[in-house]
Amino acid sequence: MPPADLAWMFAAFALVLLMFPGIALFYGGMLNGRNVLNMFMMVMGSMAVTTVVYVLFVHGIVTGNSVGGAGIIGNPVEFLGFESFTADDGSDGAYWGAFFILFAAISIAIVASGAAGRMKFGSWLVFSGLWIALVYGPLGHWVFTFSDEESGYVGGWMRNVLGLHDYAGGTAVHMNAGASALALALVLGRRRNTTNRPHNLPLVLLGAGLLFVGWIGFNGGTAAGANFLAGYVILTTLLAAMSGILGFLLVERYRDGQPTTLGMATGLIAGLVGITPAADAVTPVGALLVGFVSAAAVAWAITWKKRHKIDDSLDAFAVHGIGGIAGALFVVLFGAAAAPAGVAGIFFGGDANLLWRETVAIVATLAYSFGATYAIAWTMNKISPLRVPNEVEDTGLDQGLHAESAYEIGAELGRPSHSGKFVATRPAPNHTAKEVPNQ
Amino acid sequence: MPPADLAWMFAAFALVLLMFPGIALFYGGMLNGRNVLNMFMMVMGSMAVTTVVYVLFVHGIVTGNSVGGAGIIGNPVEFLGFESFTADDGSDGAYWGAFFILFAAISIAIVASGAAGRMKFGSWLVFSGLWIALVYGPLGHWVFTFSDEESGYVGGWMRNVLGLHDYAGGTAVHMNAGASALALALVLGRRRNTTNRPHNLPLVLLGAGLLFVGWIGFNGGTAAGANFLAGYVILTTLLAAMSGILGFLLVERYRDGQPTTLGMATGLIAGLVGITPAADAVTPVGALLVGFVSAAAVAWAITWKKRHKIDDSLDAFAVHGIGGIAGALFVVLFGAAAAPAGVAGIFFGGDANLLWRETVAIVATLAYSFGATYAIAWTMNKISPLRVPNEVEDTGLDQGLHAESAYEIGAELGRPSHSGKFVATRPAPNHTAKEVPNQ
Amino acid sequence: MPPADLAWMFAAFALVLLMFPGIALFYGGMLNGRNVLNMFMMVMGSMAVTTVVYVLFVHGIVTGNSVGGAGIIGNPVEFLGFESFTADDGSDGAYWGAFFILFAAISIAIVASGAAGRMKFGSWLVFSGLWIALVYGPLGHWVFTFSDEESGYVGGWMRNVLGLHDYAGGTAVHMNAGASALALALVLGRRRNTTNRPHNLPLVLLGAGLLFVGWIGFNGGTAAGANFLAGYVILTTLLAAMSGILGFLLVERYRDGQPTTLGMATGLIAGLVGITPAADAVTPVGALLVGFVSAAAVAWAITWKKRHKIDDSLDAFAVHGIGGIAGALFVVLFGAAAAPAGVAGIFFGGDANLLWRETVAIVATLAYSFGATYAIAWTMNKISPLRVPNEVEDTGLDQGLHAESAYEIGAELGRPSHSGKFVATRPAPNHTAKEVPNQ
Repeated sequence: MPPADLAWMFAAFALVLLMFPGIALFYGGMLNGRNVLNMFMMVMGSMAVTTVVYVLFVHGIVTGNSVGGAGIIGNPVEFLGFESFTADDGSDGAYWGAFFILFAAISIAIVASGAAGRMKFGSWLVFSGLWIALVYGPLGHWVFTFSDEESGYVGGWMRNVLGLHDYAGGTAVHMNAGASALALALVLGRRRNTTNRPHNLPLVLLGAGLLFVGWIGFNGGTAAGANFLAGYVILTTLLAAMSGILGFLLVERYRDGQPTTLGMATGLIAGLVGITPAADAVTPVGALLVGFVSAAAVAWAITWKKRHKIDDSLDAFAVHGIGGIAGALFVVLFGAAAAPAGVAGIFFGGDANLLWRETVAIVATLAYSFGATYAIAWTMNKISPLRVPNEVEDTGLDQGLHAESAYEIGAELGRPSHSGKFVATRPAPNHTAKEVPNQ
Repeated sequence: MPPADLAWMFAAFALVLLMFPGIALFYGGMLNGRNVLNMFMMVMGSMAVTTVVYVLFVHGIVTGNSVGGAGIIGNPVEFLGFESFTADDGSDGAYWGAFFILFAAISIAIVASGAAGRMKFGSWLVFSGLWIALVYGPLGHWVFTFSDEESGYVGGWMRNVLGLHDYAGGTAVHMNAGASALALALVLGRRRNTTNRPHNLPLVLLGAGLLFVGWIGFNGGTAAGANFLAGYVILTTLLAAMSGILGFLLVERYRDGQPTTLGMATGLIAGLVGITPAADAVTPVGALLVGFVSAAAVAWAITWKKRHKIDDSLDAFAVHGIGGIAGALFVVLFGAAAAPAGVAGIFFGGDANLLWRETVAIVATLAYSFGATYAIAWTMNKISPLRVPNEVEDTGLDQGLHAESAYEIGAELGRPSHSGKFVATRPAPNHTAKEVPNQ
Repeated sequence: MPPADLAWMFAAFALVLLMFPGIALFYGGMLNGRNVLNMFMMVMGSMAVTTVVYVLFVHGIVTGNSVGGAGIIGNPVEFLGFESFTADDGSDGAYWGAFFILFAAISIAIVASGAAGRMKFGSWLVFSGLWIALVYGPLGHWVFTFSDEESGYVGGWMRNVLGLHDYAGGTAVHMNAGASALALALVLGRRRNTTNRPHNLPLVLLGAGLLFVGWIGFNGGTAAGANFLAGYVILTTLLAAMSGILGFLLVERYRDGQPTTLGMATGLIAGLVGITPAADAVTPVGALLVGFVSAAAVAWAITWKKRHKIDDSLDAFAVHGIGGIAGALFVVLFGAAAAPAGVAGIFFGGDANLLWRETVAIVATLAYSFGATYAIAWTMNKISPLRVPNEVEDTGLDQGLHAESAYEIGAELGRPSHSGKFVATRPAPNHTAKEVPNQ
């Protein structure tokens, strides 16, 4: 890769890395204040496990030459321990290895949201490793690995046989993670208390902001260099994120009476998810529509889900599953031949079999990730329950699993206590006493 | 643009994007805890509106061929819907379009600070769109668009006829936004309660830090490539930010008795504002002086403003207006011929008509943005009041407009409540009881 | 430097800049809520002082031609005021000057942690300037400045005479800062109250995340361009950070019974410190081991330190000193000839004198920085006590030195108070009354 391309790819890597504190804040802030640290632990812990298994053998599963040429899984020992990446042989293996680790780790981080507030930490780490190897690995191979006829290298069936168009991982990352979060949430069951409101919305909004910045690296880096395509998808990514905000806020305004910051952040992410598979295949005005439509679809899906009382705790399926499907279908219907991908949507005279191909990809992705994740979680749960005891759940996982509490705020308003714990020593002003009924 | 330049510009774009969560935290943390979410909504909501109007027609107003060759506004339909940017024709239109959107959006975000805690959200969105089209659009054209004699392309009068030196938008971004915030604050009137202290200074400081990092992309990206100039302005930007801290803290130390973190953050931003028009026109030691002097001028302006009881709520005029003027005047007086811009200041034997030119630019910018913004806000206010009802203002805009509260902290110190609301179940220790007078 | 290299270096600069809000949050969140603002002031204040002295004469001390050819200190007037950097002569002086400022500033920021919660702010600023000139300056020269036989330029003794291998500053930055924090903590004495728990762990975790992202620029930028080496060290940096998490969490799990988020963040940083000197000298699997071993060594060192009641308040010596030593020794023992540095460790048939050389470098670094820092602090303390009065320490430095408090949270739960201070007007629900003993 020429140095200029490397320069952008290194920056893109750092931007994607920013998504990890971003997603931990985004999800952690939405929970109550007794489970926020556990969310950080799940995100960073699964990132660590992902890294180790990825280096050991999963990179081969994703990007290796297909075993038996079947397009199902890559050769797991092809990049064993990344040992071949020490050589400066022009293959950029070291760099790509690092980038692919982050793609895998952000996927499992989305899945974490489905298990918020009720899963044992050790079980989560084991689940992470299994999910990366057994669910993400094959799906990544299907979607990310191109065949090369000249060298006889065989990639995944979705990309090469089916001819899927998926710019930056709408299937392997977003639909996959969304469906898997739903499956894990079903195996775990509903939380005992689901009425809590987000405990720290400024952190949620900051997290969404960091995810937004990171997404520029995610979509921009997928262009694999400092080229026209990267600039184009950076533009469409920005546009869809912004119209995603407007789409979600409008739905809220007319459905609930007022626009909220949680809706704004959700619309932003929904727009980003929607544009991920479509970033190279729509015009700028098309990108505005992708964001708007995806966010509106996600707003609808969240309402629908609430009615069915499934505790996909932080709406990963609605945001990443439905948002990803909306983006993929938009390409099928409204793809613009003038955009870099050159895919004409059905409404613009495109070939109708594009609809068939994308539908197969969507259904196969959702079915495989839901099914395989359900099977892994169900099996693990049979061997040893995944869920923490009720008293740990009621106390909160921060205290119950990690012996910590997120905040010791309040002490600065009074005197330090001997125990180091919260002591509000500033007396309540007298004029509030009369508002207290039974005192 | 060669790939190496693109590589830096993409990174610079992502850095500038980081300024949006940065500015929302910076302003939101300074407010009381009942209006912080509304500030996030104003920043991100106006960013979304800006993006849509910018794509539709404002990019033409800013960068289009001047209507009638007058240098007043560009042709609004020249880049209609960004449709021409799908073509890989070497014009880098897609990339520049995205970058320009962020410049416009950061300007309106600064204006938001003038309306903190009292403006209707729908009115703010409408105001944003009008301001971007009618105030930012023309000013951007005057300052950012260069004429090209060969092709007959005509740019803005300030840059091309007057011969303004403004490196990265001291006029069109900072003075403009500062004067507009003041005008909007005057139309809205003072908040009912202006005594609150910043509710979350760590968030203010984090926001300032993110703005600082983003400014590297803002000033560095204005060099339009990975070149000597970009490296040079990154250095001067760093130096002015740092001496801005020292300048503000010294004023505080001798005026108020102690240096504060709010002063440190304000000095940092003031130094950055001051260097924005001057980054390519001063030596490194000159950059240290620009930051120091700008921050001291801003510290003085904040005191002056307080005496006049204008509720430019978060000091946008003092920081961005006065800071920008200080930086521009510094170039006039102390510009160094050896610096990349090659502009010799009057004290270094430069031509005195530089003073005249910069003064005209400063006065024209302030007059136009104050006047036009006042007119827009005044007219909107006549049609439908911009200000929320008193009871919404007293409750706080987070609850009153968005039905949310920023924090539900405290619940983690006790048991979850059935309502999901704040319940401090840890009993107050007995030794505090005696401090409570009437119980 | 070719444009492509510049493009990456500019991005790397911005990433390293992100480490400053990162480290302020990381340390500030670990303190109680009455000293968090002071930590921000120390970090940003010393960054400002560092910048000024660095521009004036310290860059010469670090990178100048050795005075007398002795390899002890560079010529302090060689880059006086950075005046020569205005010229576009291909030397990239402006850019490198900016980058070096950040390396110095991050070192003193680590030292700040040793003085948490008890040092006068003015004294800290003076100490910062002296430390950068007298401790960091010479050490930087020894480690960072290469001799050039052709031009007769003479660099530092450690790098050129001793033949130290230190990829990105394990000695001059991490061991140096760790030992200096310890020395300063000893001169200052223990805090009066060391029992407080971290007041805001989400901020600690966010800070660690920002440090992680910044480290990509720190280690990646040390490759001085967009090349294979940069990509390789980005990979090893990621791997060591991730295995650092696993190493620390495992020690916690088996020593304390549960893994904590503070341990996770500490392990992450320990892994990053460990890989800093070794990033170019180990295989990918070696990088996983470096992180794991460094984090485990740091976990051990923290326990050891607690037993000796030294109040190196935030464990800078354990994390940066021991972590840096672990990384350096790992190279000696397990360096891989196949890695870019081509250094074979002793276990892989390498030359045993590598051990001798690295040991001399480690001992010399620790001895010089501990000794010189102790001498500076001790002398300053004799002239005027460095420590705040007891009542200021008990009140907290935020209020005592800066007349601010970090949070005014709680007001949003009730009505605004006339004083603008914390008033919890929501009455406690009645069912808690029975838990309050004496009412």
